[in-house]
Amino acid sequence: MSVALVGAGPGAPGLITARGLELIRACDVLVYDRLVAEELVAEAPADAIRVGREPLEQDAITRLLVLYGQRGLDVVRLKGGDPFVFGRGGEEALALAEAGIPFEVVPGVSSISAVPASAGIPVTHRGLSAQVTFATAHDPSALDLPALARVPGTIVLFMGLGTLGEVTDGLICHGRDPETPAAVISQGTTSEQQTVAAPLAEIAEAAAELDPPALVVIGDVVSLAPVLGARLDAVAAHA
Amino acid sequence: MSVALVGAGPGAPGLITARGLELIRACDVLVYDRLVAEELVAEAPADAIRVGREPLEQDAITRLLVLYGQRGLDVVRLKGGDPFVFGRGGEEALALAEAGIPFEVVPGVSSISAVPASAGIPVTHRGLSAQVTFATAHDPSALDLPALARVPGTIVLFMGLGTLGEVTDGLICHGRDPETPAAVISQGTTSEQQTVAAPLAEIAEAAAELDPPALVVIGDVVSLAPVLGARLDAVAAHA
Repeated sequence: MSVALVGAGPGAPGLITARGLELIRACDVLVYDRLVAEELVAEAPADAIRVGREPLEQDAITRLLVLYGQRGLDVVRLKGGDPFVFGRGGEEALALAEAGIPFEVVPGVSSISAVPASAGIPVTHRGLSAQVTFATAHDPSALDLPALARVPGTIVLFMGLGTLGEVTDGLICHGRDPETPAAVISQGTTSEQQTVAAPLAEIAEAAAELDPPALVVIGDVVSLAPVLGARLDAVAAHA
Repeated sequence: MSVALVGAGPGAPGLITARGLELIRACDVLVYDRLVAEELVAEAPADAIRVGREPLEQDAITRLLVLYGQRGLDVVRLKGGDPFVFGRGGEEALALAEAGIPFEVVPGVSSISAVPASAGIPVTHRGLSAQVTFATAHDPSALDLPALARVPGTIVLFMGLGTLGEVTDGLICHGRDPETPAAVISQGTTSEQQTVAAPLAEIAEAAAELDPPALVVIGDVVSLAPVLGARLDAVAAHA
């Protein structure tokens, strides 16, 4: 085995998998994303080559993985969350497959459910939601808002907060109830985590001061957060 | 801290989180689901109380967690996948919160992305899918098929295979392209894993012989599986 695409989980270092940690501790080369916890980078052997992804373009990273893989080194590509959920791991896996380099995918805990959980929000809950739709909304014009407004259950969006109002207006315009509970979770699962809750019509304004990365949860499950003991800001705005 | 709701991951024991494993190794009581790997159950201390969930109803399990929690024991409730993603962890968390028992949720790798990954299918992929909808389809009449047919991107369904034809017919009837690539993955991430792929119109018949538990993936990302080196059965049925 030569290259492993490993999910580091949503932020807290203890949320990596046992298998992922084992691979890091035995690797020759560690290529890691900016949002990966430094405690995990420190788990690699002292003489391992460490490559921070930040200054490099995706193409350069992919070439690097192929290059080290061709040399027969044990490479760990450590990515935030899960490599195959909004993680571009598929692109890296394709390049490795095309180059004939053996690779392994070690899934990780994705922020899409772990971040809501850390704010006391289960994305599914009997009687409230049996369906979840996850989307990136960095470019709201790429969303099919009429379809998204109509989909039942919980909606979870990765996004820049600057365009949240555009998305929530669009959802309401296409029929989503403006009173639907919504929450924005900033820097989820870390010590800097902040959560703001408000009805859909008001969440963009309520969350305007939060820092990225942010995740937006829309749906009745948000109403469980205070019952589960989570501290929310701005939830009373429309009580 | 007294009760921890811990996700065991999708099947393979190495896919539990480091934090989850640490809690199991230090617990007084381990309450575990049927699909949890026996290697993880074996990680609890030799003198820990072990309770298999199987013969018990959900209400009985919840009462047990409250009871052990009130005695101040360190309880680990080990659930397949992620406790808050189709895991009914929210119900157990609510009961603990109502009883005033401190609890912690340790998220897990959910089958919803790890099982497709183990079949070489990234649920999102640049240019193919930037949105994923997850649903339980054990009762197809509870699905909003017109909305589901229209939602862009990847669809992932947990379901009994007996009703798959009803669901795929409904999706096609409401406008989903019958040629959409689809796959069924049985017993994902375990040594018994089997994957069958076929166009949406034919997947129910192609997958008729598979065993539960099964997960269905519908969308263009399925076409990446053979490129990523995954072995698929029946994919050529409609080539």
